[in-house]
Amino acid sequence: MIPEQGWHCGHTMYRFRREAISGPLSKTCQDQFRTALDPESGEAPERLAAYWTSGHRADFAVMSMDPDPAKVDAVHQKIMAPPLGQFVEATWSFVSVSEISEYVPSLEQYRDRLIASGAEPDSPTLAAKMNAYERRLPMMREQRLQPEFPDWPSACFYPMNKKRAVGANWFNEPFSKRNAMMAEHAQSGMAFAGKVSQLITVGVGLDDWEWMVTLWGRNPQYLKDIVYKMRFDEASAKYGEFGPFYVGYKATADEITQHCRLAH
Amino acid sequence: MIPEQGWHCGHTMYRFRREAISGPLSKTCQDQFRTALDPESGEAPERLAAYWTSGHRADFAVMSMDPDPAKVDAVHQKIMAPPLGQFVEATWSFVSVSEISEYVPSLEQYRDRLIASGAEPDSPTLAAKMNAYERRLPMMREQRLQPEFPDWPSACFYPMNKKRAVGANWFNEPFSKRNAMMAEHAQSGMAFAGKVSQLITVGVGLDDWEWMVTLWGRNPQYLKDIVYKMRFDEASAKYGEFGPFYVGYKATADEITQHCRLAH
Amino acid sequence: MIPEQGWHCGHTMYRFRREAISGPLSKTCQDQFRTALDPESGEAPERLAAYWTSGHRADFAVMSMDPDPAKVDAVHQKIMAPPLGQFVEATWSFVSVSEISEYVPSLEQYRDRLIASGAEPDSPTLAAKMNAYERRLPMMREQRLQPEFPDWPSACFYPMNKKRAVGANWFNEPFSKRNAMMAEHAQSGMAFAGKVSQLITVGVGLDDWEWMVTLWGRNPQYLKDIVYKMRFDEASAKYGEFGPFYVGYKATADEITQHCRLAH
Amino acid sequence: MIPEQGWHCGHTMYRFRREAISGPLSKTCQDQFRTALDPESGEAPERLAAYWTSGHRADFAVMSMDPDPAKVDAVHQKIMAPPLGQFVEATWSFVSVSEISEYVPSLEQYRDRLIASGAEPDSPTLAAKMNAYERRLPMMREQRLQPEFPDWPSACFYPMNKKRAVGANWFNEPFSKRNAMMAEHAQSGMAFAGKVSQLITVGVGLDDWEWMVTLWGRNPQYLKDIVYKMRFDEASAKYGEFGPFYVGYKATADEITQHCRLAH
Amino acid sequence: MIPEQGWHCGHTMYRFRREAISGPLSKTCQDQFRTALDPESGEAPERLAAYWTSGHRADFAVMSMDPDPAKVDAVHQKIMAPPLGQFVEATWSFVSVSEISEYVPSLEQYRDRLIASGAEPDSPTLAAKMNAYERRLPMMREQRLQPEFPDWPSACFYPMNKKRAVGANWFNEPFSKRNAMMAEHAQSGMAFAGKVSQLITVGVGLDDWEWMVTLWGRNPQYLKDIVYKMRFDEASAKYGEFGPFYVGYKATADEITQHCRLAH
Repeated sequence: MIPEQGWHCGHTMYRFRREAISGPLSKTCQDQFRTALDPESGEAPERLAAYWTSGHRADFAVMSMDPDPAKVDAVHQKIMAPPLGQFVEATWSFVSVSEISEYVPSLEQYRDRLIASGAEPDSPTLAAKMNAYERRLPMMREQRLQPEFPDWPSACFYPMNKKRAVGANWFNEPFSKRNAMMAEHAQSGMAFAGKVSQLITVGVGLDDWEWMVTLWGRNPQYLKDIVYKMRFDEASAKYGEFGPFYVGYKATADEITQHCRLAH
Repeated sequence: MIPEQGWHCGHTMYRFRREAISGPLSKTCQDQFRTALDPESGEAPERLAAYWTSGHRADFAVMSMDPDPAKVDAVHQKIMAPPLGQFVEATWSFVSVSEISEYVPSLEQYRDRLIASGAEPDSPTLAAKMNAYERRLPMMREQRLQPEFPDWPSACFYPMNKKRAVGANWFNEPFSKRNAMMAEHAQSGMAFAGKVSQLITVGVGLDDWEWMVTLWGRNPQYLKDIVYKMRFDEASAKYGEFGPFYVGYKATADEITQHCRLAH
Repeated sequence: MIPEQGWHCGHTMYRFRREAISGPLSKTCQDQFRTALDPESGEAPERLAAYWTSGHRADFAVMSMDPDPAKVDAVHQKIMAPPLGQFVEATWSFVSVSEISEYVPSLEQYRDRLIASGAEPDSPTLAAKMNAYERRLPMMREQRLQPEFPDWPSACFYPMNKKRAVGANWFNEPFSKRNAMMAEHAQSGMAFAGKVSQLITVGVGLDDWEWMVTLWGRNPQYLKDIVYKMRFDEASAKYGEFGPFYVGYKATADEITQHCRLAH
Repeated sequence: MIPEQGWHCGHTMYRFRREAISGPLSKTCQDQFRTALDPESGEAPERLAAYWTSGHRADFAVMSMDPDPAKVDAVHQKIMAPPLGQFVEATWSFVSVSEISEYVPSLEQYRDRLIASGAEPDSPTLAAKMNAYERRLPMMREQRLQPEFPDWPSACFYPMNKKRAVGANWFNEPFSKRNAMMAEHAQSGMAFAGKVSQLITVGVGLDDWEWMVTLWGRNPQYLKDIVYKMRFDEASAKYGEFGPFYVGYKATADEITQHCRLAH
Repeated sequence: MIPEQGWHCGHTMYRFRREAISGPLSKTCQDQFRTALDPESGEAPERLAAYWTSGHRADFAVMSMDPDPAKVDAVHQKIMAPPLGQFVEATWSFVSVSEISEYVPSLEQYRDRLIASGAEPDSPTLAAKMNAYERRLPMMREQRLQPEFPDWPSACFYPMNKKRAVGANWFNEPFSKRNAMMAEHAQSGMAFAGKVSQLITVGVGLDDWEWMVTLWGRNPQYLKDIVYKMRFDEASAKYGEFGPFYVGYKATADEITQHCRLAH
């Protein structure tokens, strides 16, 4: 059940079942909620974060990652177990795994790209850039496979497919063309370095969409800005199909119950 | 969490859970409802308005705006908190932020447009129009970012996307063409000045549609008239994709419970 | 809230919540139902009719019209108020207003049409037809804006859009072409004069579809026949998009509860 | 309410509301169920059959036909009346009427078809075939309008539309082409004579799809085989749009409650 | 009801109704669950396996096969019978039958394929391959019609259609082209021999999708890998339409209730 490479990843949206809640949640329920969302608890998966969410579809979101899918799903089961489970409904979720995208350039591909962009093949500048990339590559791989979750206030979550329509079929395009479009797309993202951090996980074969996008923002405005900018990239404009979008704000279990006016 | 520019905006539709209501709402519930919808309460967001709505999907709509997303969502949480939350279901919502559209002409662009429409480059008429626009621009920006809600009886709400179909892909069009279509669209709207007031907020990256449209009308007929007229604009006819439409009539909490025959 | 021209119109489908009904409806509930559906009650809107409906989606349909949208929605609220509201669920509705379609020919347009169809410009036949149309026109307008509901046994209800697809975009067609298609469509309908009576109301800006179609039939077979025939008209075949169809049979409140086996 | 030609037809899918069932159904409920599904009861419609169904969407299906739509719907109302209605949910239904398809060849058309297929105009073979068809025609019409339901063990039910897409618009094709495609389609069906019996009823103007298909099979495998074979016919491959498919097995009320483990 | 060839097959997804569960499941319920999922019980179908599933849509999946559709559905009925059925909701299912695909090459077709790939017509190599295929064929047929379920830890389940769009219509393609695409597709699958085992069953005429895919993986990563790889095959890229995907992990009834924290 442990992937050779990458971690299992779960995103789940929940609402409190207000129709069944006549007063503050019981102390037992609040304790159960605290334990389920505690990233320091012994049983917690490697990564665990929670967010209160805007809008009526969900009150809060939980995101978790671990090599073991049972540990990822255990967070959900801890929330849904009695007695708290009587007062919570999971309204959406996505199941995925982390991976190194085939579009991340190898050292050699990176060199070719630099030269194609005008760099001199044997220049010291090229060598310096190559050295920097070589040092960055393991960290980039680590951040994709076993990412640290940034402690930023806002995040947005959405799944996506690549279109397979007549006249716009991503999976019929040659690798070289897909690669070039993904490079343009990556360029768009780089303009938001330090403002937005991105994680792409794969749902192919596991859930209804091909990819899951997690964007963490230092400010919710950046989430809107980056998604709007990227929508003009050919990879998105022509081939992107997007599922539901959720925006959330980092919170502990107690902050969530307080925001939802269900704490004592 | 506070955007550099613009306010957070929430639209939420609610129905009373008639299946659980055997008589008038309790005084406690009615007080809770009044407080939640009171724009003068200390905790209220900068803007707050409510509407009873026609049709079975919702009994009432609430719209709110504030720099802080937690204050916008707090209105929803105040309605859904116990005990009132047992008798209310949120049936639809949209999460967005206000912004200055990229299609609002700058002074320079406005000048170019006037000249393109036949104005003499150095004429006093042109200068006068430029002066007027320069004075209007800050108010226009203010009205987009931190709009006053007009005190008109009717309003309609709907989200929209721009199409990315093969043969009609808004995000593949050059800015100049999109700009021209948006100018035509704005022209259609101007015919309803004084009858309909419009607010466009952005949901990209935050919710399932790209934009949210709020139209306030002095008469509900104008809402129908403007949307019908605009549907023939190329920006809508060819590129518009529309989500659910809701029509509502401005009301206080008490007027809503009376209209719904749930007041004592 | 009162339109300058036209009446507000509501169509709502309801089912009895059988899961909550352990015996006949109480006398109080039956009285409430009778009052809500009574077109002669003091508070009733200008037009009010009810139908029991075939199929599982609804047990009955209610259609109402009035200049005041609050009076139209009040019928719905009277049904959903406690105690009856505990046992009824509204499963679908449509909000619209009546209007004079832009495709109804003016006297002048009618004359042009007759001549285009081969009539002699100054002939007495033409003059006679013009006279007849001139006399008919005010009644036609009245019947569109403030229609009498015929006392026929069956009716069907469905909403529709005009397509805005690449290659079949109604809103990109010139008025002359749309007008010609609507004239052909009207011709199809005329073949059912005396068998089917039709009302088109507008939902643009008010609800999720652009138009609402109400067909009253002297026999349910005619409803099927006319819709099938019209589907071959270019306006429908190429441009029509249809929402849910409901068929119903005119009934009083008591006939509905008896049909549903919920009366004492 | 009685059609000039054809019978009203109802297909309804039901599930038992297991969430509300803590033990076997009461004797009262079982009696109510038996009576509602009894084709020999005095109030029963002309045709009435029930099936237990595979899969989670429904536990059983009921199909009924009668000249009077109130008698068809009464079967549904008898099931949903208290007390049984508390424990049953109707999950899908389709409302239609029987008719003679416009693609059934008249004697004259049949003759033309035979000649087009190579028959000699005045040959005794042609005359014999014509005689046979003439004798068969009234039975075929009867079987379409007032069909006997075969007592075979399995059946499948699904609604369908004919596509009106750009590039594949059934309703824009001339009758001759539609007729030829329907003849090919009929040919496909004939290969299953004695194995599968088919009934097409019309939902145009009455429900959300244009046609309802009922297939009775001597063996469920034939249901799969015929639908798969027909999918390659141009009428289906290019123009067919299919709704939900349900497969069921003929059963009495008692067999259904036993299969569902709800009998005493 | 017994197919001439092939077995009936059921896939059903379930969630525990947490809203109704205030503590561990009763011993009676747990016993009922154990019996229903016991492949060794006397009444069990020929094949029966259960999986706990990731994500909010289902807590567990059950897959069963038998010549008798009533025995396949009986597994579902045993779970939904009282008292356990009060606490379980079936959230998705698919009804299908096993069959020999028309694209499995006969001996003769296999020979033609080898020659087309460059084999010498009368060479010993060709003869050896033919012999091997001849020995393999009965097992392959058996594995398709009456498959053994591998005892691997993970599985994914999803239904699919072949597209019938304008410009990409599988059912309009000649057999030779479909056959070649399916051969390419099979080739993709062979790269996962020993890692992934696949079963295709047919839902045509029985349920809403044409085929049901079951993939068993020695590691969940392989499920993602194979589906991603195959998506580039023309049969999938151009013609595949995919329904919901579910991923699960093999488990007994007790392991499921423990994972879901509902066991004592």
